[in-house]
Amino acid sequence: MSALVPVLDRLDADLDKSLERLFALLRIRSISTDPDFKADCRKAAEWLVADLKTIGFDASVRDTSGHPMVVAHHDGPAGAPHILFYGHYDVQPVDPLDLWHDDPFDPKVKELEPGRKVITGRGSSDDKGQLMLFVEACRAWKAVHGTLPCRVTLLFEGEEESGSPSLKPFLEASAAELRADFALVCDTDMWDRQTPSICTSLRGLVGEEVVVKAADRDLHSGMYGGPAANPVRVLARILADIHDETGRVTIPGFYDGVEETPRQVLQSWQALGETAENFLGPIGLSEPAGETGRSVLELVWARPTAEFNGISGGYTGKGFKTVIAAEAFAKVSFRLVHKQDPVKIREAFRAFVRERLPADCSVEFHPHGGSPAIQLSYESPFLTKAQQALTDEWSKAAVLVGSGGSIPVVGDFQTILGMESLLVGFAQSDDRIHSPNEKYDLASFHKGQRSWARILDALTR
Amino acid sequence: MSALVPVLDRLDADLDKSLERLFALLRIRSISTDPDFKADCRKAAEWLVADLKTIGFDASVRDTSGHPMVVAHHDGPAGAPHILFYGHYDVQPVDPLDLWHDDPFDPKVKELEPGRKVITGRGSSDDKGQLMLFVEACRAWKAVHGTLPCRVTLLFEGEEESGSPSLKPFLEASAAELRADFALVCDTDMWDRQTPSICTSLRGLVGEEVVVKAADRDLHSGMYGGPAANPVRVLARILADIHDETGRVTIPGFYDGVEETPRQVLQSWQALGETAENFLGPIGLSEPAGETGRSVLELVWARPTAEFNGISGGYTGKGFKTVIAAEAFAKVSFRLVHKQDPVKIREAFRAFVRERLPADCSVEFHPHGGSPAIQLSYESPFLTKAQQALTDEWSKAAVLVGSGGSIPVVGDFQTILGMESLLVGFAQSDDRIHSPNEKYDLASFHKGQRSWARILDALTR
Repeated sequence: MSALVPVLDRLDADLDKSLERLFALLRIRSISTDPDFKADCRKAAEWLVADLKTIGFDASVRDTSGHPMVVAHHDGPAGAPHILFYGHYDVQPVDPLDLWHDDPFDPKVKELEPGRKVITGRGSSDDKGQLMLFVEACRAWKAVHGTLPCRVTLLFEGEEESGSPSLKPFLEASAAELRADFALVCDTDMWDRQTPSICTSLRGLVGEEVVVKAADRDLHSGMYGGPAANPVRVLARILADIHDETGRVTIPGFYDGVEETPRQVLQSWQALGETAENFLGPIGLSEPAGETGRSVLELVWARPTAEFNGISGGYTGKGFKTVIAAEAFAKVSFRLVHKQDPVKIREAFRAFVRERLPADCSVEFHPHGGSPAIQLSYESPFLTKAQQALTDEWSKAAVLVGSGGSIPVVGDFQTILGMESLLVGFAQSDDRIHSPNEKYDLASFHKGQRSWARILDALTR
Repeated sequence: MSALVPVLDRLDADLDKSLERLFALLRIRSISTDPDFKADCRKAAEWLVADLKTIGFDASVRDTSGHPMVVAHHDGPAGAPHILFYGHYDVQPVDPLDLWHDDPFDPKVKELEPGRKVITGRGSSDDKGQLMLFVEACRAWKAVHGTLPCRVTLLFEGEEESGSPSLKPFLEASAAELRADFALVCDTDMWDRQTPSICTSLRGLVGEEVVVKAADRDLHSGMYGGPAANPVRVLARILADIHDETGRVTIPGFYDGVEETPRQVLQSWQALGETAENFLGPIGLSEPAGETGRSVLELVWARPTAEFNGISGGYTGKGFKTVIAAEAFAKVSFRLVHKQDPVKIREAFRAFVRERLPADCSVEFHPHGGSPAIQLSYESPFLTKAQQALTDEWSKAAVLVGSGGSIPVVGDFQTILGMESLLVGFAQSDDRIHSPNEKYDLASFHKGQRSWARILDALTR
């Protein structure tokens, strides 16, 4: 702890100044999706480069065909790991402006409720506030020790809120420069205001559009109803076969590579107290519809799914048309976990459909996407160290959570740079990101800086 | 036969003149769907009234909110039945005109192939040619015997090709005038050029749009995929449950009122030699998809169906959207036979869906249509007599066929006038009705007249 304690003290002492720096960045209108703010985006990138240089980073603005990237490097002691830290400096648009209580680009510290201070403004939580935590941790470490405890590369993107069109090409072109031992990604939430979390898994995705065809034209259901194959009926039957009565997917081999989540992880999820009512109530539902015998959190974080995202066939306008369609289609997607292989899942699904295709029907498939799940090993020493560091800072055990969706940059780090990511963030679920009145808890800002200092310390020891 | 033979002789002798009369009617451009031909429609009605008056009918043009009806009455001997004969004088549009080999409104007799003469022109088969057969039979009978063998009411509609908007109100307003012992409807085909047929059944129809709803909004399938109910999946499962492995409908009570077709009728259908290949080949299919163990003709003419005419839910545009839809719907229709009750079928379907509705889902139903099947009793003496009369004329046993669809006027006669219909027609499947180069076989025109004379004679003895 000898190296860490003075860094934490320094962060405490420097809090007001770190707030001023964040405010300066928040005042820059770096709305990436709106071409009117192109210059503002570059200004934010340049502001970051200038700030990082004051810490001693070798920082530069890197042009792309869209908004620029910020890349910065700082050496560390020999033998220490090399960390890539990722965040984004662009923000969402602010309209409707009249719903904001304060100017979205004139940040303030306000008291949200007694004892709870927040930083207001667009980007305060997503993602300028979060990325500055790490910058402040580095600044304090450098100020106290004259160096950083490990080699650090920073990558700040300017197009995260507009689809990241330049990210993949940039990673591919800069792979040698950016590849590190592992990545830290700061774009996630705490479990709640008291409980820090690390996201250790993201589900993968395989999409397939399946088109079932029968007659060579739409048929009159009076003339042909009975003997003629009906693609809507065939498709419905195939889709219905995909799940059994317990909600399990019946496609042979589908669960190959799916692991049972360790008991202690399930117990920690159980301890979070997330009930089906809590999870489903806000969307008008109440009972879990997936595999029976598993909690909602396990279903979303650690179990694969087959979902039907769209279906269409025959007459779908107003009123009725007694037609037997020539074809019908469904858009089917599979969320993958652990080591499920997207290629094998796609093949198994196609075989499953073909086996069930009756006489007179043919099928076409149109692939969409195909990315494996991300699963950090529960035995990873980085994970254990980061979890302990967070637990120390917040005096409450950090929980390992999953995400049901995907965060593309994490998949790109995996596939392009061959690097695992640790997802740590200090946002709260009520931060109203992408909405009017975005905020970031002052406690997140302060203890988040201290958390990163502790993680840096822990990871490198 | 004493009354009949001279009538048949008279028809033979008068064939050329009857052709001239048909040509005069065919030259009138009575396209009901096109307002430009409104006056032509009235002209056709007036032509018919004038012609019927020459036979001695009490005939008149009856105005409706659309094109007029023609109604004509002729008394018959006391104790003889009262027959309502229905046809329509309006025709389909003729475009694309450049595909016609001859002017559609300048009818001719041409030799289609050696030994096969046809009458060309729009309406020659559908339905002016067919309705004039009966008029000519009456004319000959009247000329020979000075009266008709039974009381005859004629109803010629002018809107059959444009949805019959005025038919129901007219039948309701004129029920007392039009109600007869049974109806003759002349808008159907022969089985083939040698084989006369009577259509004895039309399937009924119940339509239901079923909407399954779950969450109160569309959901991200990453965030909620697993625990959240998916209406597309729920709907597919319910639809898949509606048929068992043998193609039977599983809805409880669905087959109540369905009768097995008499063995001799099935044998007569068998003798028609209609194979699955013949029936399905032209639409690109080959294997019957309905209830196993039944011929294609039985499936279409005498078995009920559940068909899915349309389905939609979730994202159906190009590409992919990983959404879990808030709702999905299907348009389901049931073709009914025999004594199936549309009201009970609708209720049974709704109960079937509700029983299968999982937690968190709700359902809405939107009814469409609801008409029972038409089934002439195979024991009807009218049917037996008409069948024998046709057999006598064509020297080949007349077959009793069914129709998989519905002919609305027949249902209206049933429900509004409480009258059964005998469907007899002499069109051929290659008559190209509704298409360029419509024609009517001269043999149909000649022997059709003789057939009606025989039927009139048979029905009234």
